[in-house]
Amino acid sequence: MTRSSLQPVAAARPSPQPDWASVAQSVADALVPDAAARDRAGASPRRELELLREAGLLALLNPVAHGGGGGSFTDALVATRVIGQADASIAQLLAYHYLHLTNAVWRATPEQAERLSRGSVAGKWFWGGASNPRDPESRLTPGAAGYRLSGHKTFASNAALADKITLRAQLGDGFAVIVVPGDREGVTHGNDWDAFGQRLSESGTITFADVRVEPDEVLGDPTAAPVPRTSLIVPFHQLLIVNFYIGTAQGALAEAARYVRTTSRPWQASGVEAARLDPYILEHYGNLDVELRASVALADVAGQRFEAATARGDAITPEERNVAAAAIYAAKVHASRTALEVTSKIFELMGARATASHYGYDRFWRNIRTHTLHDPVVYKSREVGNFALNGTITPTPLYS
Amino acid sequence: MTRSSLQPVAAARPSPQPDWASVAQSVADALVPDAAARDRAGASPRRELELLREAGLLALLNPVAHGGGGGSFTDALVATRVIGQADASIAQLLAYHYLHLTNAVWRATPEQAERLSRGSVAGKWFWGGASNPRDPESRLTPGAAGYRLSGHKTFASNAALADKITLRAQLGDGFAVIVVPGDREGVTHGNDWDAFGQRLSESGTITFADVRVEPDEVLGDPTAAPVPRTSLIVPFHQLLIVNFYIGTAQGALAEAARYVRTTSRPWQASGVEAARLDPYILEHYGNLDVELRASVALADVAGQRFEAATARGDAITPEERNVAAAAIYAAKVHASRTALEVTSKIFELMGARATASHYGYDRFWRNIRTHTLHDPVVYKSREVGNFALNGTITPTPLYS
Amino acid sequence: MTRSSLQPVAAARPSPQPDWASVAQSVADALVPDAAARDRAGASPRRELELLREAGLLALLNPVAHGGGGGSFTDALVATRVIGQADASIAQLLAYHYLHLTNAVWRATPEQAERLSRGSVAGKWFWGGASNPRDPESRLTPGAAGYRLSGHKTFASNAALADKITLRAQLGDGFAVIVVPGDREGVTHGNDWDAFGQRLSESGTITFADVRVEPDEVLGDPTAAPVPRTSLIVPFHQLLIVNFYIGTAQGALAEAARYVRTTSRPWQASGVEAARLDPYILEHYGNLDVELRASVALADVAGQRFEAATARGDAITPEERNVAAAAIYAAKVHASRTALEVTSKIFELMGARATASHYGYDRFWRNIRTHTLHDPVVYKSREVGNFALNGTITPTPLYS
Amino acid sequence: MTRSSLQPVAAARPSPQPDWASVAQSVADALVPDAAARDRAGASPRRELELLREAGLLALLNPVAHGGGGGSFTDALVATRVIGQADASIAQLLAYHYLHLTNAVWRATPEQAERLSRGSVAGKWFWGGASNPRDPESRLTPGAAGYRLSGHKTFASNAALADKITLRAQLGDGFAVIVVPGDREGVTHGNDWDAFGQRLSESGTITFADVRVEPDEVLGDPTAAPVPRTSLIVPFHQLLIVNFYIGTAQGALAEAARYVRTTSRPWQASGVEAARLDPYILEHYGNLDVELRASVALADVAGQRFEAATARGDAITPEERNVAAAAIYAAKVHASRTALEVTSKIFELMGARATASHYGYDRFWRNIRTHTLHDPVVYKSREVGNFALNGTITPTPLYS
Repeated sequence: MTRSSLQPVAAARPSPQPDWASVAQSVADALVPDAAARDRAGASPRRELELLREAGLLALLNPVAHGGGGGSFTDALVATRVIGQADASIAQLLAYHYLHLTNAVWRATPEQAERLSRGSVAGKWFWGGASNPRDPESRLTPGAAGYRLSGHKTFASNAALADKITLRAQLGDGFAVIVVPGDREGVTHGNDWDAFGQRLSESGTITFADVRVEPDEVLGDPTAAPVPRTSLIVPFHQLLIVNFYIGTAQGALAEAARYVRTTSRPWQASGVEAARLDPYILEHYGNLDVELRASVALADVAGQRFEAATARGDAITPEERNVAAAAIYAAKVHASRTALEVTSKIFELMGARATASHYGYDRFWRNIRTHTLHDPVVYKSREVGNFALNGTITPTPLYS
Repeated sequence: MTRSSLQPVAAARPSPQPDWASVAQSVADALVPDAAARDRAGASPRRELELLREAGLLALLNPVAHGGGGGSFTDALVATRVIGQADASIAQLLAYHYLHLTNAVWRATPEQAERLSRGSVAGKWFWGGASNPRDPESRLTPGAAGYRLSGHKTFASNAALADKITLRAQLGDGFAVIVVPGDREGVTHGNDWDAFGQRLSESGTITFADVRVEPDEVLGDPTAAPVPRTSLIVPFHQLLIVNFYIGTAQGALAEAARYVRTTSRPWQASGVEAARLDPYILEHYGNLDVELRASVALADVAGQRFEAATARGDAITPEERNVAAAAIYAAKVHASRTALEVTSKIFELMGARATASHYGYDRFWRNIRTHTLHDPVVYKSREVGNFALNGTITPTPLYS
Repeated sequence: MTRSSLQPVAAARPSPQPDWASVAQSVADALVPDAAARDRAGASPRRELELLREAGLLALLNPVAHGGGGGSFTDALVATRVIGQADASIAQLLAYHYLHLTNAVWRATPEQAERLSRGSVAGKWFWGGASNPRDPESRLTPGAAGYRLSGHKTFASNAALADKITLRAQLGDGFAVIVVPGDREGVTHGNDWDAFGQRLSESGTITFADVRVEPDEVLGDPTAAPVPRTSLIVPFHQLLIVNFYIGTAQGALAEAARYVRTTSRPWQASGVEAARLDPYILEHYGNLDVELRASVALADVAGQRFEAATARGDAITPEERNVAAAAIYAAKVHASRTALEVTSKIFELMGARATASHYGYDRFWRNIRTHTLHDPVVYKSREVGNFALNGTITPTPLYS
Repeated sequence: MTRSSLQPVAAARPSPQPDWASVAQSVADALVPDAAARDRAGASPRRELELLREAGLLALLNPVAHGGGGGSFTDALVATRVIGQADASIAQLLAYHYLHLTNAVWRATPEQAERLSRGSVAGKWFWGGASNPRDPESRLTPGAAGYRLSGHKTFASNAALADKITLRAQLGDGFAVIVVPGDREGVTHGNDWDAFGQRLSESGTITFADVRVEPDEVLGDPTAAPVPRTSLIVPFHQLLIVNFYIGTAQGALAEAARYVRTTSRPWQASGVEAARLDPYILEHYGNLDVELRASVALADVAGQRFEAATARGDAITPEERNVAAAAIYAAKVHASRTALEVTSKIFELMGARATASHYGYDRFWRNIRTHTLHDPVVYKSREVGNFALNGTITPTPLYS
């Protein structure tokens, strides 16, 4: 599956694709050395965003015809995972960028979609969002020559650094999805994200105070029912999450292996010469590796189901959508648990000295613990069961 | 990957392959209705073996050029899994058949291999083995016009019904792998398999009392080092096991879903009208489904690694072999745990009345509990850890 | 706490109490040797009931003044646990005997209570019940010189062998608790218990066809609200269950230890001379032992809470009742999980040969798996959480 | 058990004992409000130590005849647990104080013991240690009018704030246990504890540079075998640890309950009006509560075994010691796992907003994760198994 996921099927592809895994790996390599220091500092990730931008990762999904990378959704997921191996916050930035760009393009008319996609490539736009459904809805009201937007959202992922913000707002009796520039007058970023994990993820609050919205910034036809493909936005969101959880866990487990090989001392009662030969370290490392391999395998299967579903375009049926969604939610449940377990248990492999602050190894758990609360994982188990037993998935706005 | 796994790469394939999953499904459908009764009766599975034979599943792996099915290893694994969904004992028969046939062909000279393969197709042979390494070694001694074989083995899988038995025996300072007919004079089958699970698996004892062995029944050159591809026999064995565990768990979970939908009553404190809507049943079914999906995904990845490794033939390196082996052992660990958990916890979904003897639902756990003791799963965790931390896998004869 | 639990506080105690743990141990010792054979035969446990009877265990709870054993509820729980170490079915018989006797005495008027208690000692009565709330209610209707009883119940524990049956029946708009002889005309025992576990527990169906009920067989005042102490009947039932689960798990783990020490062979890759020195067997045995010690400690704490609650008599408040109930339900959750885990995982310590049918070691899991479905354990977790978060426990008839 | 644990059995007890749980609770109440701020600041806990001192908790174990509190070991364990509910670091200070005081008294001659105990009460001494066995041994060499001490230790718990430091040092071919003032010339405190958890626990490094040691600062007879009671020091250490783990977990779970009741919002798909009614929150809170109740029950049983063992004094046999040690190690395994699980999973009950830095709720996990690496918990599982299977516990200096 190598066509660009945002590109018409028959579009020409004039040049060979980059190897996105390698591109992402180069950025990851640059992010690793100061990951612990960056977590401690907790500064706004402007430099790190530039690394993503300069590597071309922001344009990965855009068609070659638009000047973009022509990558597939699978490529985007892999890139997210690879960045996550180095820094979970930066992977979140990339994940939500892909989400909000895709959401905009999918909701747009063909003309809007092309303009947004070309503009995004040309301007190297970074995308954010502001639609947290647990807050009161933002409101869009018709005004002179367009609309006015008012609202307040906690958890506006990426928005503080974003060139473009995709968001949902109430418009009359229905909802519109709109795109506004991040620096539009009246948009105020709280810059107040202050959780103990994902500290660089720029997920703070946002306020829209009577913000001007151009007619063309309202995507598609807000008075019509959403087009079928948009039923895949929530699964795409969840699948992006899965991949940065997996990347984080892979990064943590790899770091633990390195530490065990180079630094851990054998336990005195173990009777072995090196920690890496301790029967319990072998067993427990193996157990974590098994679970992580399983998460990866499930995520890859889920990715295939998602690609298959998106390939159906607006012909997709609710049943087909749910087949993909159930695979993704199963991967979400598994990745959430595995990442929590891996990031907590690696210390039992490494030993007491690995808790020294300068290593910053607790950041793995703090990052995963923080983001895995995005939506309750138990409700994803329920929907996996619901799909198996009842053939359905309960619709929950923006969550399932 | 559709070429026959036992066939030269360039061989002609004159006719379209059967869809082996469908073939296996037909047999599975025939096995399901009396699975509980069959478990209770515990008779020798002669009728069931005939179903496998008549469906062509015994010749699945044999090249089309030999009259065989031309299936791949993946096809054999899938067939094993599908049969396991209906009856774990019968799936074990098929798994060990593929194992012992493949072991013979891989150890044989090209001439022996072709003769055995053609003979197997023509005679619709069912293969068994007798090499349990935890018993004293059987001994082969040169005699007039060939050799004489003596020994005794517990756990001689398939042998009591087998047309051909593949086994390892000590010959001088080394070992020979030989093939003898199951009814050769001096071969005595104990017919004494009496575990609480896998009751139809014909895994009883065998005795070789001064059995005649023809020179050509000694495979390959017993004085030479084993050819590299044979390093994949143990991983193949483990991978077959993985697939019938998965099939068994799938069969159990599907049965539980059917029961919950049709028979379980809602718990009085649940506040719902049907058991299939109980929030805890949805959650816990979901959890089991997630784990089983993970086992399947891991087994499929392991299967791909195995196909890649076998495609290397005798060019395979120890490192390449271990990449496949580690993937397979990871799948083994996961499938063992998942199958145990699924077969025990389904009752919590179904409720108390599902313990009625006439359903025989405890057979799922009894089958899995029995065979998952074949080799200690914790030692597989250890080797997964060993491969990750030390880049190696501890060689343990016939187990890793 | 040594006063008889069914005795007025100030009653004289003329003779020293038996050591009930030792008494139970003697019966357990007699039950152990043929436990596997008994499970296979599945006959009605008449001989085993006589062992309980002759040892005086049926009268353990009855006051010395009535000729009984003068034991405490703690003694009854310990006896149940000790018998469970030998045979889970027989422990269930004893547990339900204590339950149905206590239920009758607690519901009775003082005069009825004394007559029932004295009668029970003199007649060496074995008590059963027939109140499964998931079936339609039995109905009691006024008739000439008493009442007539009609109904049908699945799961009438102990009833087929019982001298006296305690049961709940609808009477007008309310409920009456009554006691009838097991052989009263019109009482038909299905003798149809046929689960895969607790095979000797005599939990089959019962039918009441226009059965005569004497006025005095109706306990207490059926038109009045139940006396407060009766709110402890359900916790008592659950606590008895906890103790026979624990006993069963203890019996299984002890048997596994014996087998590991005497019969298991060291795994070839373990590098040790005896299975009992394998690092993984030590670890995993230790893990099971930790969980079982925890179940025991929790059950003992729950027992203390129950004794404290019963000591309050009819002065007990709903809050005090729930303190005891929550402790008991917590112990139930833990014991259920531990017993399931122990009875399934002991095989990983013992190895493949421990699955031989003649050992019958699968009976431990079959027994626990069957009875732990009595009521869904997840609903007990919920109530433990409910008590912690909301200070209450949801009333569910006969279950919480 | 109310006699002072450090007091001769027959000693007079002239005044009623304080209720140590209440005393500890008062200190805990003072510690709670700024626990999160204190963790962030990470300053030396001088003020907090004064709270312990002024409340009399440092003298809890000393006999009334010495002016001490006359508390039992059980009282000390309870106090440790209660302080842990408020602040795990401060509980660690108290735990190690009891450890190093008790170690000194038990190793001392009767005269030394009385002088140390009286001095400790009069001077309100805070005790620390410096014996980490994983570093090279400190060395004691005879000098003019006493000895000279040289050495370096990582992890010198409490030492930086201690009035007295108990430590083990090599003396000739054997070992001596000595007590030196924390401010003796030549003693340098690294003040370099910098783990991500237990941030106020003052567990930094210490250096002894040719430190003068008075003859009477060498405890007991260093040329003789240690007296039998000292075999209980390691179990006592482990049991103190168990109790501050439990306290920490209790504090975390109570905080979660408060948050769920007051702050969490119901999940939109839950269909309930308040988070505290969500079926999954009830279930999962219940599950955590069950495990924590089990840890508490096991710790209390272990405490009883420890009291019984210490009551044997120097008459204790190795078998009796191991009965207590196995109970304590089982409690250690359980408490370690439970505390890790509780401190990580409480967030799933509270929801995403509970990750806000100002709550500081991640400190619970960071504290437990850090200290549970003190010694590998899997080796404690092994010894529990070892005791059950082989009747013995592997001696590991200062760890088992």
